Amino acid sequence: MNHRYSERICSTQKSFIREILKVTANPEIISFAGGLPNPNLIDDEGIQKAAAAVLKEDGKTALQYSTTEGHPPLREWIAERYRTRYGLSVDADNILITNGSQQCLDLVGKVYIDKGDSVIIEDPGYLGAIQSFSMFQAEFLPVPLNEEGPDMACLKNVLDTTSAKFMYGIPNSQNPSGISYSESRRRDLGAILCEYEMPFLEDDAYGELQFDGVTRKPVSAYMDGEGILTGSFSKIFSPGMRMGWVCAPDEVMEKILIAKQASDLHSNYLSQRILSKYLDENDIDAHIAGINEAYGKRAGWMIAKMEECFPDDVHFTRPTGGMFVWLTLPEGVSSTRLFDAALERKVAILPGTPFYTNGGGESTARINFSNSDKDEILTGIGIVAEVLEEIRTTPQ
Amino acid sequence: MNHRYSERICSTQKSFIREILKVTANPEIISFAGGLPNPNLIDDEGIQKAAAAVLKEDGKTALQYSTTEGHPPLREWIAERYRTRYGLSVDADNILITNGSQQCLDLVGKVYIDKGDSVIIEDPGYLGAIQSFSMFQAEFLPVPLNEEGPDMACLKNVLDTTSAKFMYGIPNSQNPSGISYSESRRRDLGAILCEYEMPFLEDDAYGELQFDGVTRKPVSAYMDGEGILTGSFSKIFSPGMRMGWVCAPDEVMEKILIAKQASDLHSNYLSQRILSKYLDENDIDAHIAGINEAYGKRAGWMIAKMEECFPDDVHFTRPTGGMFVWLTLPEGVSSTRLFDAALERKVAILPGTPFYTNGGGESTARINFSNSDKDEILTGIGIVAEVLEEIRTTPQ
Repeated sequence: MNHRYSERICSTQKSFIREILKVTANPEIISFAGGLPNPNLIDDEGIQKAAAAVLKEDGKTALQYSTTEGHPPLREWIAERYRTRYGLSVDADNILITNGSQQCLDLVGKVYIDKGDSVIIEDPGYLGAIQSFSMFQAEFLPVPLNEEGPDMACLKNVLDTTSAKFMYGIPNSQNPSGISYSESRRRDLGAILCEYEMPFLEDDAYGELQFDGVTRKPVSAYMDGEGILTGSFSKIFSPGMRMGWVCAPDEVMEKILIAKQASDLHSNYLSQRILSKYLDENDIDAHIAGINEAYGKRAGWMIAKMEECFPDDVHFTRPTGGMFVWLTLPEGVSSTRLFDAALERKVAILPGTPFYTNGGGESTARINFSNSDKDEILTGIGIVAEVLEEIRTTPQ
Repeated sequence: MNHRYSERICSTQKSFIREILKVTANPEIISFAGGLPNPNLIDDEGIQKAAAAVLKEDGKTALQYSTTEGHPPLREWIAERYRTRYGLSVDADNILITNGSQQCLDLVGKVYIDKGDSVIIEDPGYLGAIQSFSMFQAEFLPVPLNEEGPDMACLKNVLDTTSAKFMYGIPNSQNPSGISYSESRRRDLGAILCEYEMPFLEDDAYGELQFDGVTRKPVSAYMDGEGILTGSFSKIFSPGMRMGWVCAPDEVMEKILIAKQASDLHSNYLSQRILSKYLDENDIDAHIAGINEAYGKRAGWMIAKMEECFPDDVHFTRPTGGMFVWLTLPEGVSSTRLFDAALERKVAILPGTPFYTNGGGESTARINFSNSDKDEILTGIGIVAEVLEEIRTTPQ
């Protein structure tokens, strides 16, 4: 058979993370490589009750085909939360339910990107987005992140000298770096994007996972209703049910709807109904508070252990939310070498190079804290420190 | 904001069917326009039991992230069914679970189609496929269908004079025409596609819905393991749970996996687990037999009523499976006019023009029988016949 594959598929690699996760799935390994929510914080009993109620009360409807946009009460719940938490003026018509927030990237890619078009992205940037936009043969314009968010001088230069279709970013507890944009940076970013009429795709997978208790307004709140937001129930409800959403202005939503119809008609309706019932019958804010308490402790143990046993020339972010710490080793120390050596001691980290669209990052690594317990964190970080010392004193 | 949308999205229309379905959702309307499985034949009680068992026995795992390929026992179940029903030599590694079979079209589009590439398609062809491939800016090479399948002389001419990436078809109870390819046509089609090394994307959404009791081998069975098959649990289990699959040779599957990762990481894992449990605990063949008995009766009532009250110059297919009858009105009689006039009498049909990628079909219509009861079928077809008589005797 003569398979003449598309250009796009020939130029896209398998997900590096998913390949690494296969290696690290061995239960003997302490894995900081993945990005899994802690299963102990998934309310399987509550979900079981909600599923039973939906299937008993309205099973035949919940199992039938449904609308492309998604279940109206669920869309209204999301819109209402945007209004009350952030003061955004959106309603249910601005919300479309997707298969996790990853699918939003695919849909927005379809709506904006022709071959060779450019997308502005954080450097380092989220690997899932890089992979998704690569499917549409995007070129990337990376803007470095610093402690407060994207480097504004660099961004201005990119806006002045290039032409992009949109900017993509994760202002809350960014993946992979763990940093959150400061409030003033959000304001400045919103202003400059509006000035240049540059759409912003704001990925807010971690907005609810803020264990410092601070509610941070999305950049979209400073963009006069023009932002495109994506959100996810994966981190606060269930990742396996693949419930995410995109929130967009009417004009953009009309295009996203066409892309969704062509992609898979509509998202799993039974899961939408179970989620909607769960939100009606449970105190999701209390549940989220419990997750944040648990993740905050884990981040605290990890940071304390790193401070205790890492040398001064190793830098790491101090996340106030999300699931990741970002490690920067001294120049010349390869995180791939650290990965290999730590894996021999049955500890897995994630080397940072795949997050850089323009090369670099050889000394960086992403460390997940959400899916390990206290002993694993203390033991695992201790081993990483020992291994780091070994590779620094051993020629490659 | 300066939304510079992609070429693809600007050239793709909203689904005509989904727009019509909004008009016909009024419960006072007898609708033959959609393609819904009959909700009375969805086993909501069995699914409720399976959901309860999965969530009770293994909830935290079933709600967690999972693999891109899908739940291994479910993939093995599908592979085993291909082996025993059709003698295909496939195993679980050749199966990937998708969000309904519609997503297979998106994934295969990603894997093969660059802007301007051609796809060979039945004429009339499935609207969901036309929409999905249009997202990748495909051109269509339509091959007319006759009673036995694609017109082979025309197909040979297309293969000789053009260059396509693959052929797409629905050999069992085709949507929209309702016809099934004959066995000899399947054999000939498989042979010519192999001769020209042309991949075949075989959409088998209706393979299990054969109420004449005949098991028809897929065209892929005559292609030496080179076919790409898609299947769906929407018609035999639940459409709302969006459970479909693609079956492909190893080499192609490697590409599809990359496309699936980039699209949404993986399909709803809880639903995969519920489906898998349901298949373990229930006699799906008995369930399918019940659906076929019910749909066979409905098709019979519809055909009998059409034979009774349609004039001789109206042609219609006599489906042996699936969910649709295809109507061809006398030349010059517009099915859009019939649609409008019938809708005034609260009966909805689906005009056939959107199924033609190269124009034409103005006198054709698709009539669904699966989602109406006997009274609705007899009354509705009677009204269509009356309205048809009226518009033929009234100048437009």
